[in-house]
Amino acid sequence: MTSYLWLVIAAGALGVLYGAVQTAALMKADAGNEKMREIAAAIQEGASAYLRRQYTTIAMVGVVILIAAYVLIGAYAALGFLIGAVLSGAAGFAGMLISVRANVRTAQAASQSLAKGLDLAFRSGAVTGLFVAGGALIGVAGYYAALTVGMGLESTSREVIDGLVALGFGASLISIFARLGGGIFTKGADVGGDMVGKVEAGIPEDDPRNAATIADNVGDNVGDCAGMAADLFETYAVTTVATMVLAAIFFRDQPYVDAMMLLPLAICGACVVTSIIGTFFVRLGKSNNIMGALYQGLIVTGVLSVGALWLVVEQVVGGPVTTSGGDIIEPMNLFWSGLVGLVVTAAIVVVTEYYTGTGFRPVKSVANASVSGHGTNVIQGLAVSLESTAIPALIIIVGIVVTYQLAGLFGIAIATTTMLGVAGMIVALDAFGPVTDNAGGIAEMAGLPSDVRVSTDALDAVGNTTKAVTKGYAIGSAGLGALVLFAAYTEDLRYFAEEAAAGSFFADLGPVAFDLANPYVVVGLLFGGLLPFLFGGMSMMAVGRAAESVVAEVRRQFRENPGIMTFQTKPEYGKAVDILTSAAIREMIVPSLLPVLTPILLFVVVLLIQPDKANAFAALGAMLMGVIVTGLFVAISMTSGGGAWDNAKKLIEEGYTDKSGVLHQKGSEAHKAAVTGDTVGDPYKDTAGPAVNPMIKITNIVALLLLAVLASGKIV
Amino acid sequence: MTSYLWLVIAAGALGVLYGAVQTAALMKADAGNEKMREIAAAIQEGASAYLRRQYTTIAMVGVVILIAAYVLIGAYAALGFLIGAVLSGAAGFAGMLISVRANVRTAQAASQSLAKGLDLAFRSGAVTGLFVAGGALIGVAGYYAALTVGMGLESTSREVIDGLVALGFGASLISIFARLGGGIFTKGADVGGDMVGKVEAGIPEDDPRNAATIADNVGDNVGDCAGMAADLFETYAVTTVATMVLAAIFFRDQPYVDAMMLLPLAICGACVVTSIIGTFFVRLGKSNNIMGALYQGLIVTGVLSVGALWLVVEQVVGGPVTTSGGDIIEPMNLFWSGLVGLVVTAAIVVVTEYYTGTGFRPVKSVANASVSGHGTNVIQGLAVSLESTAIPALIIIVGIVVTYQLAGLFGIAIATTTMLGVAGMIVALDAFGPVTDNAGGIAEMAGLPSDVRVSTDALDAVGNTTKAVTKGYAIGSAGLGALVLFAAYTEDLRYFAEEAAAGSFFADLGPVAFDLANPYVVVGLLFGGLLPFLFGGMSMMAVGRAAESVVAEVRRQFRENPGIMTFQTKPEYGKAVDILTSAAIREMIVPSLLPVLTPILLFVVVLLIQPDKANAFAALGAMLMGVIVTGLFVAISMTSGGGAWDNAKKLIEEGYTDKSGVLHQKGSEAHKAAVTGDTVGDPYKDTAGPAVNPMIKITNIVALLLLAVLASGKIV
Repeated sequence: MTSYLWLVIAAGALGVLYGAVQTAALMKADAGNEKMREIAAAIQEGASAYLRRQYTTIAMVGVVILIAAYVLIGAYAALGFLIGAVLSGAAGFAGMLISVRANVRTAQAASQSLAKGLDLAFRSGAVTGLFVAGGALIGVAGYYAALTVGMGLESTSREVIDGLVALGFGASLISIFARLGGGIFTKGADVGGDMVGKVEAGIPEDDPRNAATIADNVGDNVGDCAGMAADLFETYAVTTVATMVLAAIFFRDQPYVDAMMLLPLAICGACVVTSIIGTFFVRLGKSNNIMGALYQGLIVTGVLSVGALWLVVEQVVGGPVTTSGGDIIEPMNLFWSGLVGLVVTAAIVVVTEYYTGTGFRPVKSVANASVSGHGTNVIQGLAVSLESTAIPALIIIVGIVVTYQLAGLFGIAIATTTMLGVAGMIVALDAFGPVTDNAGGIAEMAGLPSDVRVSTDALDAVGNTTKAVTKGYAIGSAGLGALVLFAAYTEDLRYFAEEAAAGSFFADLGPVAFDLANPYVVVGLLFGGLLPFLFGGMSMMAVGRAAESVVAEVRRQFRENPGIMTFQTKPEYGKAVDILTSAAIREMIVPSLLPVLTPILLFVVVLLIQPDKANAFAALGAMLMGVIVTGLFVAISMTSGGGAWDNAKKLIEEGYTDKSGVLHQKGSEAHKAAVTGDTVGDPYKDTAGPAVNPMIKITNIVALLLLAVLASGKIV
Repeated sequence: MTSYLWLVIAAGALGVLYGAVQTAALMKADAGNEKMREIAAAIQEGASAYLRRQYTTIAMVGVVILIAAYVLIGAYAALGFLIGAVLSGAAGFAGMLISVRANVRTAQAASQSLAKGLDLAFRSGAVTGLFVAGGALIGVAGYYAALTVGMGLESTSREVIDGLVALGFGASLISIFARLGGGIFTKGADVGGDMVGKVEAGIPEDDPRNAATIADNVGDNVGDCAGMAADLFETYAVTTVATMVLAAIFFRDQPYVDAMMLLPLAICGACVVTSIIGTFFVRLGKSNNIMGALYQGLIVTGVLSVGALWLVVEQVVGGPVTTSGGDIIEPMNLFWSGLVGLVVTAAIVVVTEYYTGTGFRPVKSVANASVSGHGTNVIQGLAVSLESTAIPALIIIVGIVVTYQLAGLFGIAIATTTMLGVAGMIVALDAFGPVTDNAGGIAEMAGLPSDVRVSTDALDAVGNTTKAVTKGYAIGSAGLGALVLFAAYTEDLRYFAEEAAAGSFFADLGPVAFDLANPYVVVGLLFGGLLPFLFGGMSMMAVGRAAESVVAEVRRQFRENPGIMTFQTKPEYGKAVDILTSAAIREMIVPSLLPVLTPILLFVVVLLIQPDKANAFAALGAMLMGVIVTGLFVAISMTSGGGAWDNAKKLIEEGYTDKSGVLHQKGSEAHKAAVTGDTVGDPYKDTAGPAVNPMIKITNIVALLLLAVLASGKIV
């Protein structure tokens, strides 16, 4: 099996290599005239400065946890945490570095043709995508190889398991900070800038007179790009790790346990290759259908992945396998489970496009509601956002039932892994969005001809949908992935209870029943259920406060420097970036620590209230499920709803004719109402909603690590 | 015990009698000048017409279910369903009849003094409150007496249990239709009327030139009053029934089983008396603190209820009791459990006031956010709405833990019953809101001096908070009540499985584990979890469509009849009422049937997918819990958020000075933004949010009835 492991690492390296080669090609593209380059340099500078400060702050939290992991669990866990954190941060940084260089080149390319603009923007997205997938794969598979092949540790030993779980935790911790900090920055700039610029001063979006413009563009890169990359890195790493842990538990002491632990890695490795191939098929046809071009690449990746999946299962698994519990799983059933993962991905993509695309009922209904005013726009948007959760949830339900029938809990895990396998391609679809958004901003600020803006706007509208799609995909896979993590928690707990030495923490622990008839389970469900709501509320308020600080700053500049409005002096863009940087970093801390600390809190409190350890473990387990149950709906409703609002505005900007035949355009009353909806949707879809995804997983991983700490015997 | 049962029924009758006497007194109050009476008559006519059509429609659904209950379960169940449905409907109708008469009298009284206005409005609310509590108590206790004392049936027999559960179902079914239909009507009128009137035509709220004004006032009565009364009736009846069922199961074959089944009824009976006493203590002091006056009454009721509770437990329970499972419960622990119920009520009242009152951070923050525009107002309101769920959920969690420690599941049930016991007083606090709202509308339309409007506005602002308080209380008690229902489901299931005759549906059923590690339990949780979101989305859209039809109608009248704007001709108010009536009734059907049909659907589908009946029952049980978990948060966030938006608008109307010292008043840009938020909050807090409450319970009761149907052996 070791040779396959090297192949997996090689696939990861191939992904990174693809990224490097494409980057080199990208850098050769024309970066436009001097004015454009100057603007791009300001964005680059702001984004780098923000990320440096963000990562410095996170590092302080990280060092504390690193030491805690070393003291409470051991060196391998500490090292795993470090690897996960550093790689997740690097993925985010790399995504940002690419996109701040691709934006200006996309603006320049779009001035030649839509096809060239799409090509450049998409390729930069693909770089981020393959960096994320390849990097995560190298991290997980590399550390696994180092521990097992290098250090000679048993693959199912606690050192290896704890090391891998800690790696996942490192990735998650960075990603929640990055998602939230970046999200607060980008939406603080966006909302605040629009508030003063569009509403008060009456100047258009991305107008160079607005001091928040550069900050807005910086935000696209640090939030939508770096934050998203860290998030997907985390989802990818955590899911792979969770499936490996489950394999280690389910097939412990079987001769093929190593093969089964390798399986998720092998699937991901194969899918890195199919993702790379898929990227070459994204080409704008004669019909100028951007979404169609992107789908073409996605479909190629999907179809090839089916074959790759079959091959991997055939090669790695070979014959029927038996779990420690005595269930026999046919290899074909693992293949079918993986296929279900791909189908779930496709289904979520289609449903999200339906809810956020400009061509369908939901977005049209929001546009139509804008005609009667701000209030009805928001009501309809909220209604769409609530409704949009139903079908994705049903898809996930069907996925759970089918894969469980096929191959038990391990089937669910394989489906989730396969779903995540194609993340390289999915991230590529997403990361091109902020690049085109930036390109549009640069075109506006540099005063390029308006048809450039038309091209970048067309790309941007599709970007809104693909961004919503990725978020739906991320949260859907997170929902499934969290079930896998929950299974890992229950199985780990059972293992510790069975193996417990006399006098250890788990020694007197009876079987833990996560039965809904146990009130502590209900308490856990409700407590877990409140977290996504509280977290969502806190992050929305954070955006509000950040936006307020931007409003105050831009107003101050207009007031103290009247030359700005007459184009005589340039606003101090850097000042707005600085203010937002401080605000975003200050605001991200508390909500990010919520999912880290609450699982420990609940466990300790239940243990203090009553002596039965089983109830404390049951409440903690139920809490994990509670976070998943409400988190899934909160996140989907926010990301889909936000996408619908954004595109309803775009629909009106393109000219929307209502039922009575009246045309509504940019500047109309309906447009103003749609702008309100878009503003509301901003923190929904780009701050609170996506950050729920790492939040769900952090609670789960913290619970797993808590078990490891209790089992290590170092504190109790 | 029988003599206590008669006392309970007498207490119920006392409540109804109090209502009748107060009504007679109310009717003697001055109904104002002719113009006012004319307006009030139009509102009365519209409200009666709407409710008649609504109940006719519901009756059609009801007859189908009545026949089904008779055929599938038996005559006692059918009769119980009929009683529950008729009484719930009657409670709603009575509430409406009072409030449409009290509104004009309140307007007249408010023209004399604030104290007189409050007195009249509150007394009319108290009538509704005591009708609801007294009526529900007579229904449940009366039917129970008729079946046991009258027909001589065993109190724990299936006939009695099924009859009581069916009574709860009847009440729930009516209440979801009434809540939703009324909610769609009232908010369709409110939103639609404001859209055309305030925004397009630029005329003030409640201006007589607006054709939707009467409809708006009708809405307050059929939605906030009749709908709310039916809802609380349902919560009251279902909770009492669920506690009785639990007592029948837990103390089956014990000598004191009748006493334990009587206990919830006795607590409620005693609290009807304390509620009546409390109403006499609501009097406006010299400080003119309206909320303080209301609290005074509430506190008196609360304190007296503690004593009453102690007396009831002492008299009815007497000594320690032992459950069938062998657990011994001390009577004092039941008293403490009940006390926890009262404390939970008080805590929820305080927290809701914090989140929706004009004097605290949340509402102020929404008002402050209105200064920067529509978008930030909505963002802040949503943030508050999400955040506002956390503390109520924690209160409920603490309530569950404490009462479970005290007296097991039965402790939770007693806490919930006691919480509901004081419903008479709580409904009184709520029902006075729509009356004052109407009074303000009548004052405006009748052209009364503006200081009358100031008085009614002050009452109305407090009404917004008390309305939110009642909703928080209703949903909180629903959350706890649903846990009791869930316990009844699991215990019933266990009983049927144990007692099953060979060949019956339950014969081959093993123990059902609602273990979170079972994927069908997860599937049930997710499926249940999606319902409140989907239901919320559907009802918000329904309001949007209803509002659109109003907008079209009011526009048509302005266009075809230019005399309206110049006060030369009166608009056709009746036309708008008719259109809304049709719209509301059409729109209420599908969402209302969602919770009725989905539990059956899930059960059948899981049974078809795989043969294990235990999994189907487990999935169904988990679904009930899933509905509670997300429903609780969705409902609280909607009702508190809506209240905050509404009062933020009120705060600005009273004159709000922001941080930079600028004063914002009616008509300012900040006010416009606040109006947007209020519009958004309308369907949130008055349609979707409160309707989630009966929705949760219907799913639970349908599951209980499904067990009864399967056990009856009539279909399988």
